[in-house]
Amino acid sequence: MLDVIEKAKGRSVTIQSPGTVANLVCGFDILGLALNDPCDVMTVKLIDRPEVIIHNVDDYNLPTDPQKNVAGVPLLDMIERLGNQVGFDVTIEKRIKPGSGLGSSAASAAGGVVAANHLLGNIFSQNDLVQMAMLGERLASGVKHADNIAPCITGGVTLIRSILPLDITGISSPPLYVTIVHPQIEVRTEDARQILRKQILLKDAIKQWGNIAGLVAGLMKGDYELIGRSLEDVLIEPVRSILIPAFAEVKAKSLEAGALGGGISGSGPSIFMLSKDEVTALAVESAMKEVYTQTGIAYYTYVTTINKEGVKIIG
Amino acid sequence: MLDVIEKAKGRSVTIQSPGTVANLVCGFDILGLALNDPCDVMTVKLIDRPEVIIHNVDDYNLPTDPQKNVAGVPLLDMIERLGNQVGFDVTIEKRIKPGSGLGSSAASAAGGVVAANHLLGNIFSQNDLVQMAMLGERLASGVKHADNIAPCITGGVTLIRSILPLDITGISSPPLYVTIVHPQIEVRTEDARQILRKQILLKDAIKQWGNIAGLVAGLMKGDYELIGRSLEDVLIEPVRSILIPAFAEVKAKSLEAGALGGGISGSGPSIFMLSKDEVTALAVESAMKEVYTQTGIAYYTYVTTINKEGVKIIG
Repeated sequence: MLDVIEKAKGRSVTIQSPGTVANLVCGFDILGLALNDPCDVMTVKLIDRPEVIIHNVDDYNLPTDPQKNVAGVPLLDMIERLGNQVGFDVTIEKRIKPGSGLGSSAASAAGGVVAANHLLGNIFSQNDLVQMAMLGERLASGVKHADNIAPCITGGVTLIRSILPLDITGISSPPLYVTIVHPQIEVRTEDARQILRKQILLKDAIKQWGNIAGLVAGLMKGDYELIGRSLEDVLIEPVRSILIPAFAEVKAKSLEAGALGGGISGSGPSIFMLSKDEVTALAVESAMKEVYTQTGIAYYTYVTTINKEGVKIIG
Repeated sequence: MLDVIEKAKGRSVTIQSPGTVANLVCGFDILGLALNDPCDVMTVKLIDRPEVIIHNVDDYNLPTDPQKNVAGVPLLDMIERLGNQVGFDVTIEKRIKPGSGLGSSAASAAGGVVAANHLLGNIFSQNDLVQMAMLGERLASGVKHADNIAPCITGGVTLIRSILPLDITGISSPPLYVTIVHPQIEVRTEDARQILRKQILLKDAIKQWGNIAGLVAGLMKGDYELIGRSLEDVLIEPVRSILIPAFAEVKAKSLEAGALGGGISGSGPSIFMLSKDEVTALAVESAMKEVYTQTGIAYYTYVTTINKEGVKIIG
C-alpha cells in the first residue's frame, strides 16, 4: 500500500458528484436514484500530512473544519484506514443546495471518497466507500443511511436491502425523466424523522410492500404502467407532506400533466415526479411552477434524467 | 354468448390444478408461487340447469353443497354472470390435503373456474377468474386473498400488488427446487390470522420491505445469493411459527443442508425451503425428515419445482 500512496502523492483529480432522490415514494429508507442535474464539482489532491484541508468555492458557508464537514469525516476515516500516511486537500464547489432533499450531503461525502480512492488506484471496494461516506450522512442527520450514498456512487436506481450488513443492489430501469421543484424553505432531516410514527398498522405495511415489490418489478420490466400504479406511499408521505407547502396540489397537478407519479425527495422539501418522456416532464415542470408561483414561495425547478454513472471523473 | 353456451353444453374437460405456496417469507399477502407437486385433478362438465353438482372422489369428506364448497361458490358466481343459462357438474379428486397450507382451497376454486372458462371458449379474463376464485378463498378463510389463486391460475411466482383494485404481475425466476414438509397437524387459517399483531414497528416494516424488494430483484436477476439473503421475515414468522412444532429446528437444519431459505407455507403447518439444485433439495428433505421423525408427528414431504403453467388442461 505504501507504494500506491507514494506514487499518488501530489496528484489531484476533479469529479462530478450527482444529486440523488432517496426515499423513493414507497421505498422509504431502501430505494434511491441518481440525477444528471444538479451535480457538485470537487477536486481532491493527495498531500503528505494525515489531515483534511477543505476549501469551499460557493456561497453556502459550510464548515471547513473536517470534523464538522460531511466530506471531511469520511476522508478522515479513510486516512485512518490507510495508517495515517496520507492526507487530502479538497475543494468543493457545491451546486446542490444543502437542505434541498436532493442528497447534497451525500454528494460531498461520496464524491470525496470516490475521488480519493481513484487517486489511490481504487484500493477500496464499493462497499468500503459506502461505509465511509455514510459517516458523512450520520454527521448531517444523526443517522447512517445509504439511500443517497449508494446511488450517488453507483448511479441508477439502487436498492439498499439492508444497512447492517450492508447489502446494495442496482435495479435496472427504463428511460425516465425526473422533474423536481425545490421550494426555498428549510425542512430539517431530523425534524422530518421525528414526526414519523414509530408504530404503524400491519395492513398499511402490507399495502406499502405490495407497492415496493410492484415498483421494483415495474422498473426491471420497464413497465411504465406498473411503475405508475406502484408509486404510492400510504405511510410516510401523509405525515411528512404537511411540512411541504402546496404538496398535495403539486402532486395532483403533476399527475394531471401526465407524470407517472412521485413524491417527497428524501425528507424534503423538494418534490420529484417521474415521467416517461421529456415533453411530459416539461409539462409537469409548468404545472409545478404554476402552483408555486401562486404560493409566493421562491423555488427552483429541474428537468433531468436518471444518472447512470454515479460519481464521474472529469479531470 | 348464447351461441357459445349452446355449443359447449354436454362437453367436459379435465384439468390439473397445482398446489401453491403463499406468503412467500417476507412477501406476506403479496407473493406466491405454484408447485409441480401436489396437484388436484378436476373434471368439469357443462349442464343445462343453472346449478353446480359436486362429486368428491377422495376421502376428505368435503361438502358437496355448492354454497359450502370452495369450488362451488366461484362457479355459482360464474353462472350468475352468465345469466343463469348453464350449470356445471364437477368431479374433484383432491390430492392437496385441505389445511396443509399448500393452497388446497385455491386449487379447487381456481381449477373450477379455469376449467369452466375453457369449456366456454375463454370468455372471461384472467382478472375475472381471479375475482371469482377469491370467493372460494373467502368461504375457506373469511378473507378474499389472491396469493394462492393468482399463481395457481398463471403458474410461476406471482406478485399481488393490490387486491382492490386487483393488480397481478408475474415475477420471472431462475430454476428453483422446493422442498416441503407437511406435518399432519391442523393450523386453521383463521387462527393464524388472529394471532398476528395489528400494529408493528416502522423499523421492522422497513426491514421487511427491504427484503421484499431484494427478493423480487433477486428472482428477476436470477441472483441466488440475493434471493437467499432476502428470504427473511421479521414480522409474521416469529409469531406464527409457534403454531408449528419444531419449526426453528427444521429451518436451521435445512439451511445447514444448503437451502437458500424458506419459511411457513401459507399459514402453515407446511414448511417450505428453496434450493438451487435437486441434490440440495433432497438433502433438505432428509434434514426435514430427521427432525420430524424425532418429534413423533406424522408428516409428508415433497421435493418439487416451480410450476410455470398454472392450471393445465389434461383431457
